[in-house]
Amino acid sequence: MRQDEAQGAGTTFADFVAGTMWADVAAQSHEAKRSILNFFATALGSAHDPAVSAALRTLLPFSGAATSGIIGRPERLDAMGAAFVNAISANLLDFDDTHLDTIIHPAAPVAAPVLALAQARGFSGQAVLTAFVLGVEVECRVGNAVSPGHYARGWHITSTCGVFGAAAACAKLLGLSVDQISNAIGIAASQSAGIVENLPSAAKNVSVGNAARNGLFAALLAAEGYSASPRAIEGPLGWARAMGDEPDIARLTGGLGKTWEIAKNTYKPYPAGIVFHGVIDACLTLRAKLGQRIDGIASITVQGPALLLARGDRPVTNERDARVSIHHCAACALLLGAAGVPEFSEAAVFQPDIVTLRQKVRAALDDSLPDGAARVTIQLVSGEALSEIVMEAKGSLADPLSDSDIEEKLRDGARLGGTDWDIERVIDDVWRLDTLADVSGLMGPSG
Amino acid sequence: MRQDEAQGAGTTFADFVAGTMWADVAAQSHEAKRSILNFFATALGSAHDPAVSAALRTLLPFSGAATSGIIGRPERLDAMGAAFVNAISANLLDFDDTHLDTIIHPAAPVAAPVLALAQARGFSGQAVLTAFVLGVEVECRVGNAVSPGHYARGWHITSTCGVFGAAAACAKLLGLSVDQISNAIGIAASQSAGIVENLPSAAKNVSVGNAARNGLFAALLAAEGYSASPRAIEGPLGWARAMGDEPDIARLTGGLGKTWEIAKNTYKPYPAGIVFHGVIDACLTLRAKLGQRIDGIASITVQGPALLLARGDRPVTNERDARVSIHHCAACALLLGAAGVPEFSEAAVFQPDIVTLRQKVRAALDDSLPDGAARVTIQLVSGEALSEIVMEAKGSLADPLSDSDIEEKLRDGARLGGTDWDIERVIDDVWRLDTLADVSGLMGPSG
Repeated sequence: MRQDEAQGAGTTFADFVAGTMWADVAAQSHEAKRSILNFFATALGSAHDPAVSAALRTLLPFSGAATSGIIGRPERLDAMGAAFVNAISANLLDFDDTHLDTIIHPAAPVAAPVLALAQARGFSGQAVLTAFVLGVEVECRVGNAVSPGHYARGWHITSTCGVFGAAAACAKLLGLSVDQISNAIGIAASQSAGIVENLPSAAKNVSVGNAARNGLFAALLAAEGYSASPRAIEGPLGWARAMGDEPDIARLTGGLGKTWEIAKNTYKPYPAGIVFHGVIDACLTLRAKLGQRIDGIASITVQGPALLLARGDRPVTNERDARVSIHHCAACALLLGAAGVPEFSEAAVFQPDIVTLRQKVRAALDDSLPDGAARVTIQLVSGEALSEIVMEAKGSLADPLSDSDIEEKLRDGARLGGTDWDIERVIDDVWRLDTLADVSGLMGPSG
Repeated sequence: MRQDEAQGAGTTFADFVAGTMWADVAAQSHEAKRSILNFFATALGSAHDPAVSAALRTLLPFSGAATSGIIGRPERLDAMGAAFVNAISANLLDFDDTHLDTIIHPAAPVAAPVLALAQARGFSGQAVLTAFVLGVEVECRVGNAVSPGHYARGWHITSTCGVFGAAAACAKLLGLSVDQISNAIGIAASQSAGIVENLPSAAKNVSVGNAARNGLFAALLAAEGYSASPRAIEGPLGWARAMGDEPDIARLTGGLGKTWEIAKNTYKPYPAGIVFHGVIDACLTLRAKLGQRIDGIASITVQGPALLLARGDRPVTNERDARVSIHHCAACALLLGAAGVPEFSEAAVFQPDIVTLRQKVRAALDDSLPDGAARVTIQLVSGEALSEIVMEAKGSLADPLSDSDIEEKLRDGARLGGTDWDIERVIDDVWRLDTLADVSGLMGPSG
């Protein structure tokens, strides 16, 4: 489908969203289920994080009829409140899914409102999957159209683009007309917000939660007759240009329905910045080779492309630093043989033997290596040296997590989050989502 | 007070907001009351507009305990919902107050959440006035720091800056600490949104309503421990630079407490673009001079600076065009002797004698005239000519609306909006706001 120059992108998207049915997206539904399973994994893992609890305390007095579950917890809120809180817990550690072309975490802002709304209204699993695939499509295409300048300029792209996906998905779920869907997407443009400067703080969670909540709000307002410009995204005084970009219209709406952004979704095995995953993989392999010789390490050299060094060659003073540290990623993988949520906790960051090993790590440029690759060389006091290179890290498109890896990630998350939800039932329900007549059971402690 | 380079603007604002008491703002309170009275005038005028009713329908199922009144109506919502709806009605026609340096409409995003929160918690009139003055200060200073580029780039400045003022005002009202106030302002930066492309649609109302609602939300989250960067506004990946501007720090936080932005607030006598007010004033004077000769008009020439022509020399096809049309402003003032809400209604726009007179209006550049000024020359078929020049229009800082003008504007609004609220009681309560121990009575039909 070629972008019709005579009509706004909002209308083009709306035609596509209104006209796409379950049969058109069924082939994408396995990847959608993997995304939703990963969404539950991270939301369960952070279910009792202080930021989630504080958001819940704030919203409880401002909730209408409590129709929608808070993942991993006994409380409920109305669908807009639940969308806000569940998007926060899913994205809190940036351990959720990643669309590599934009670094959008697609599921949190889209799955949270879709599931909250579906639970409130009793929609089917096929309706949920269809809306989710379409929401991710709109979200990532909006991100594609303004990448890479958008994120570099200071926009938190998961927040700023997530609201478009949430609006499109909720509009689809509500069965809105083409005009109403276009209006919902245009209203999303007037609600798009979130800045990188706030990423190390809880204010980041607010913009992610708002993306989910306000996308649903946009659809509800459009259903009540609220309008917007059909060129809200690409118009001369519209979203993309106000945000600082010349939007790439071909990437925005070209080939809709022919390619699917959900097919490019990836899932992290480690709650660290994605460029560090190759370092971790190499160190886990080296740990196995080292065996008992781990105490004999003299030095560790991590070589990688400029991106790796720019992102991760810096001192570690807290957990947030650790998640973007070459030194910590190497040290915890070598010493603990793991790089999960506990290995990036405050306790691990200040564990004396990890601190000591971290100090032995040195980063060095090898610009012959592509982004995502890393070479780790260990020099032993014995004089011996071991080296390992990883070109495509686990969790990348070339070496994706398996279905059972994602299941295990969910079980790990549930253990860490301390939920009383029936986790095997959640896993089972997500895999058979397309057969559920009503998804409400998925969104509570025991179905 | 000089900006302390070592601390973020968020902290500087927070120090100021926390440290400023009623005694410090009492001298500003008369202007604050005028702003609030004008806020009620426009909110009452649009109380039953379809956009207000649709917002209310959308939010009613998503409201917690209904603590806060919807201006001019019998319904109530929780404080966040009421803040959203009242900001919409106050701003709907752009007939609210104007801060001329930025073209921010200051009151709607700040007064709406302050009054909704004060009603919910039973705060005093002095607390409301203090919070309101401080909120307007922060809102307009943020706008000053990025003007005029910000609006020109496509940002709807009342929405994007209003959220900062709402956050600061609500944080003050809640009695938050310096750190919490700084966090509230930083959280506002992650919620700042709204684009000019959507101004001709109801999506504009969404961003204005969100500014009010989300400023309150930011303060509530900060009270629950949510944090933000103290440099969220001016940091390298912060709000101002992401939005496209190099922030002017001197205008942001220089001289806090020495000058007051509320003192620069203005109130429109006519629901038209502010640059057209001089045209209307001149035509109202000419109408009195013309007397019975109005039918003998051959042509009308409106001369003004480039800004006037750029904004208003275009065809009129609907009410929105009329509010920014040199031709319609001149025609309705001359023919109807008024330029209020009815004179910009659909009925007036298509009234045959107005259409005919509009066609006799010609616009011409006179770049010796300053912005805001206009000269109108009427050529009569008799050969006679009459001319009138206005240098400072009614409603400008040089010729402000009187207190009783604003009262009359409120009474007009109430009549048009069709409210059953006791309007004389509202007027009386606003003038004696500093003596009210609890402002709740102000926010309902009968006190």
